[in-house]
Amino acid sequence: RLIYELLFQIIRKALTEEKQVSTKTSAADLVTETDHFVENLIISVLKEKFPSHRFIAEESTAAGSKCVLTDSPTWIIDPVDGTCNFVHRFPTVAVSIGFAVNKELEFGVIYHCTEERLYTGRRGQGAFCNDKRLQVSKETDISKALILTEIGPKRDPATLKLFLGNIERLLKAQAHGVRVIGSSTLALCHLASGAADAYYQFGLHCWDLAAATVIIREAGGTVIDTSGECSTPVSWTFGGPRGCFRHLESPQYSPPVAQSHFWQCLAGTSALSTRLC
Amino acid sequence: RLIYELLFQIIRKALTEEKQVSTKTSAADLVTETDHFVENLIISVLKEKFPSHRFIAEESTAAGSKCVLTDSPTWIIDPVDGTCNFVHRFPTVAVSIGFAVNKELEFGVIYHCTEERLYTGRRGQGAFCNDKRLQVSKETDISKALILTEIGPKRDPATLKLFLGNIERLLKAQAHGVRVIGSSTLALCHLASGAADAYYQFGLHCWDLAAATVIIREAGGTVIDTSGECSTPVSWTFGGPRGCFRHLESPQYSPPVAQSHFWQCLAGTSALSTRLC
Repeated sequence: RLIYELLFQIIRKALTEEKQVSTKTSAADLVTETDHFVENLIISVLKEKFPSHRFIAEESTAAGSKCVLTDSPTWIIDPVDGTCNFVHRFPTVAVSIGFAVNKELEFGVIYHCTEERLYTGRRGQGAFCNDKRLQVSKETDISKALILTEIGPKRDPATLKLFLGNIERLLKAQAHGVRVIGSSTLALCHLASGAADAYYQFGLHCWDLAAATVIIREAGGTVIDTSGECSTPVSWTFGGPRGCFRHLESPQYSPPVAQSHFWQCLAGTSALSTRLC
Repeated sequence: RLIYELLFQIIRKALTEEKQVSTKTSAADLVTETDHFVENLIISVLKEKFPSHRFIAEESTAAGSKCVLTDSPTWIIDPVDGTCNFVHRFPTVAVSIGFAVNKELEFGVIYHCTEERLYTGRRGQGAFCNDKRLQVSKETDISKALILTEIGPKRDPATLKLFLGNIERLLKAQAHGVRVIGSSTLALCHLASGAADAYYQFGLHCWDLAAATVIIREAGGTVIDTSGECSTPVSWTFGGPRGCFRHLESPQYSPPVAQSHFWQCLAGTSALSTRLC
């Protein structure tokens, strides 16, 4: 669609320019003019086409908009995921747009601008990268797994201890590797395409999850809370524990035995409480 | 050149196939048929053209070949850098070929197969990605830096402690972010292109460094040992401390004041002794 071409041009151009960078919750929590510009552009295009629809978007929420999911058709938007990468022109940057009706995710689109890869998923109709069908990997053994996570912008001692402790546990469990690429939505796209076997993160926002959740489920994977339950937009909105992603052998959303070992390697459910969006 | 097209086809095809994976020094130190196949292909093509030249290459060395740099023209080859990524079809995989004469690096080529990006550097003639000239970033403040490192295949407690301790120190110094992408040569290409501000790793091999060193220097960056001295193929071959990369404001190879703080954040010179290739 035309909007992807436009987004691609905006972000690609912005990547080569000097950026006005501001900070949000911490010195490492960055935002640029492009985040605002892209978000406003997406919302204005969609509003014109669907005047009754609602929107939940990263920068509007940071600016004070309420973040409440209703039964109304709702677009959930991260205009520039990987803002820190974007600021550094590190080419792992994406736009993420999810769509929910009656609190159910209907479809998701993640656009990896710099590589011109469009990831899409629609409930019941599969997930694709450009035109290639996506399928999660079949690996269930941590000692043969490639695992993805993110640092996030927090730098307080408890967060660092949790972040480093979890990586240490996974490496001690002989994971093939742990990767940190700086964009949760693109990490989740790697998971959907079978290029990685698991992803986990605590304290993700709904705009990090919405599009990726549909894509992962449609690629045969699952998205679960730290409670082991299926993660839903409702549990995100009401601040339930969330943020762990794990592929499954089967597309059912209940956690299988193979996940227990993965969970045993991770800590953090109580250490990091979740925020409302 | 034709060989890149051929390499691209071989690795791209191999990425979609099931792989025969063997291990080398640890359960996470992987090698595939493709590593051997690509290495043999590169060496046989070059040998035919340059019968008197010598070769230092990852898999031949692992198989027992001696790794000695002489004054003869020598090709230094990593056939598949990011083998663990490659095994998982994680698309951060490259071929690295450096060339030295009289123990001086003359040129380097790194081919990011899946994205069709060819990084090249030739002494005194600049560094390029496809046809775009590369330039390292100008950032010297850790609290505004994006920093790259790698885990490597070792999983012993001392290595893990060092690896995690260094990341912790950089995050406590308020680095914008730390990224782990699973390919040292491609991490170094990001450094050369200004997409990241620093890279460090202990225990790199000469085939990880040869091509990247020329590319970084020609992009205005520097490659230094843990002693702070300019890193050379000779210091690698004789097992001197090595493996830290840091961009500079100036293209001189002596470490500037700005590096002191970076070094203060890192440990490891004595903790991890280096191996001969």
